[in-house]
Amino acid sequence: MKEPVLLTPGPLTTSSATKLAMVRDWGSRDTGFIAINRRVRELLLDIIHARDSHVCVPLQGSGTFAVEAMLGTLVPRDGHVLVPLNGAYCKRIARICSILGRRTTTLNFEENEPVRPGDVDAALKRDPSITHVALVHCETSTGVLNPLKEVAEIVARHKRSLLVDAMSSFAALEIDGQKIAFDALVAASGKCLEGPPGMGFALVTRDSLEKSAGNSPSLVLDLHDQWVNMEKTAQWRFTPPTVVVAALHAALEQFVAEGGQPARLARYRRNCEVLIEGMTRLGFKLFLEARHQAPVIVTFHAPTDPNYDFQKFYDRVREKGFVLYPGKLTQVDTLRVGCIGAIDEHVMRAAVHAIADTLAEQNIRLHETGAVRSRQNAA
Amino acid sequence: MKEPVLLTPGPLTTSSATKLAMVRDWGSRDTGFIAINRRVRELLLDIIHARDSHVCVPLQGSGTFAVEAMLGTLVPRDGHVLVPLNGAYCKRIARICSILGRRTTTLNFEENEPVRPGDVDAALKRDPSITHVALVHCETSTGVLNPLKEVAEIVARHKRSLLVDAMSSFAALEIDGQKIAFDALVAASGKCLEGPPGMGFALVTRDSLEKSAGNSPSLVLDLHDQWVNMEKTAQWRFTPPTVVVAALHAALEQFVAEGGQPARLARYRRNCEVLIEGMTRLGFKLFLEARHQAPVIVTFHAPTDPNYDFQKFYDRVREKGFVLYPGKLTQVDTLRVGCIGAIDEHVMRAAVHAIADTLAEQNIRLHETGAVRSRQNAA
Repeated sequence: MKEPVLLTPGPLTTSSATKLAMVRDWGSRDTGFIAINRRVRELLLDIIHARDSHVCVPLQGSGTFAVEAMLGTLVPRDGHVLVPLNGAYCKRIARICSILGRRTTTLNFEENEPVRPGDVDAALKRDPSITHVALVHCETSTGVLNPLKEVAEIVARHKRSLLVDAMSSFAALEIDGQKIAFDALVAASGKCLEGPPGMGFALVTRDSLEKSAGNSPSLVLDLHDQWVNMEKTAQWRFTPPTVVVAALHAALEQFVAEGGQPARLARYRRNCEVLIEGMTRLGFKLFLEARHQAPVIVTFHAPTDPNYDFQKFYDRVREKGFVLYPGKLTQVDTLRVGCIGAIDEHVMRAAVHAIADTLAEQNIRLHETGAVRSRQNAA
Repeated sequence: MKEPVLLTPGPLTTSSATKLAMVRDWGSRDTGFIAINRRVRELLLDIIHARDSHVCVPLQGSGTFAVEAMLGTLVPRDGHVLVPLNGAYCKRIARICSILGRRTTTLNFEENEPVRPGDVDAALKRDPSITHVALVHCETSTGVLNPLKEVAEIVARHKRSLLVDAMSSFAALEIDGQKIAFDALVAASGKCLEGPPGMGFALVTRDSLEKSAGNSPSLVLDLHDQWVNMEKTAQWRFTPPTVVVAALHAALEQFVAEGGQPARLARYRRNCEVLIEGMTRLGFKLFLEARHQAPVIVTFHAPTDPNYDFQKFYDRVREKGFVLYPGKLTQVDTLRVGCIGAIDEHVMRAAVHAIADTLAEQNIRLHETGAVRSRQNAA
């Protein structure tokens, strides 16, 4: 049976060329692998126009491994991190900082609203001991887009350091390393780059990485040590996830062929429009105001009809070929649908049809049930 | 062109069935993936006959990530680790302990000799503050086999805890969790299990894992937190390397079908015999005494002939279809050849032929050059 399309924030649907790049045994110290590893690092830097100013340090593990590595490597032991909070991934950053024993201050916002740059400005004015701001660019828990450019300008004006978690935005939304000042940015193979999950990476200014020797409380998560060794030997310190690197390499070549970040953004935007338009027609309501919505993952209010049961709904939509994602909010019942991966607007349209059919089959009425009824009548 | 056979300690040659298991998009929260994840964890415990006594905690990253996670999670902050040292991987354990701020004592042995259990006994008698012994089962840097059973008995008699790095031995050499007492053992997907690299795992007694809450100085490397969450949700805390898990699952089913650990050991033993016999015939000398040699990776003295240049030799043997491995010893010039992976004695014989041809082509004479000459004459 055909495998389902993954409409999740990752792992997501990858192309056949990307998957087939894994059907091979790669020696981690072999010339061919070293060459693709070098190319991957260069192409990742190209996405933010930073081949000369920044370095790319890949790391084994999921995106969160790269987040912890960035915090542990770049924040010195006497550092103080300000974490603007508007979702689960910001909270995770604050939790990591506190586990690492780094002094942490949080700045709370509502989950359905972006971080307010003015509040970051005020917090930095108020507390000169803050050395770093750690910002999530697109909060995967809701899909809300945070104002990276504005926050970066404020942090730079206060001469503090900015660390960016660009997990869900990297390669889809524009981030120009020449225009936006940050010390480091992390992302991973399995999101908008459309590779399989299994490795993350940090793009770090050469200057801040050089100053970070000895900060890390971990060997495996020490980005400075990883970088120094990779520059010296062209190899990873510890066995790399070779198949994931090879697949990411294939995915990056396809990314370039597609037209890079602008083309990817255009495709995801169209996916998102088709999704929102279709779901709205069915009666689903967006959790976020449209202007705060990144074209990455869309959170909808769950139906309030007692016939709605997420697991049953999920299972049936999956049978029809689409994997949805549960909500990640504590206060409100939601569900999430991703717009990312090797999929286009036709796939999104088919997904909306599958959702519509499932609503009808499970007799689930939405807040505005007109669309569902007319579909039921049509069926 | 056909990809070469990897005669390395990992990543190594995998079967087609294992590689093809990656040609699919796996949703990390989807039923199918959750089922293979459960099965992988059970099959790993079965290998050491410990499905009831131990738990399996998988972890993203290379084997060293699992080693650091084991040390950070199971050694409390006031713990004291004794590390018997006879190679690079033991040294790495000591380095990790010291980075993690755990008190560490090393016990030095020669690189070409196994750890002596009597010395471990004496060290534990001498210093009652030692809480843990961290032992590498098979030292990948030389291939030397350390006496796990004897050390385990001594550690148990002293009522201390044993932590085992079984990276290169797991699934090939017998380790019975019912007969050998250890608190935790770590290994990885990309070695004798014949999966691709990208994840490690710890097999931990339920009791010691339960007691380890709050020890870890890391979020992502906290095995206790990883376990608690996986038991509760059947999912990984952070995005798993789905394709690696799927491939490991396929590799494990093949492992069972082959006849499990005894069958794998028999195949590797035969590979090792054919390799050593063939290389000895060419004039290569074993770095280790045969009785200390695990049938996993074999270290040979490098030829002393000035015509020998490792890179040139490596490149030419690679052209013939076999990837060798550099030595990892500081004192002596060596090269290493792995006996593990989805390969059999016929592959090993072909590798020996390729090495013989390369010696002849590059006019490299060995200590005893009879064999090379006769081969040259034959050619």
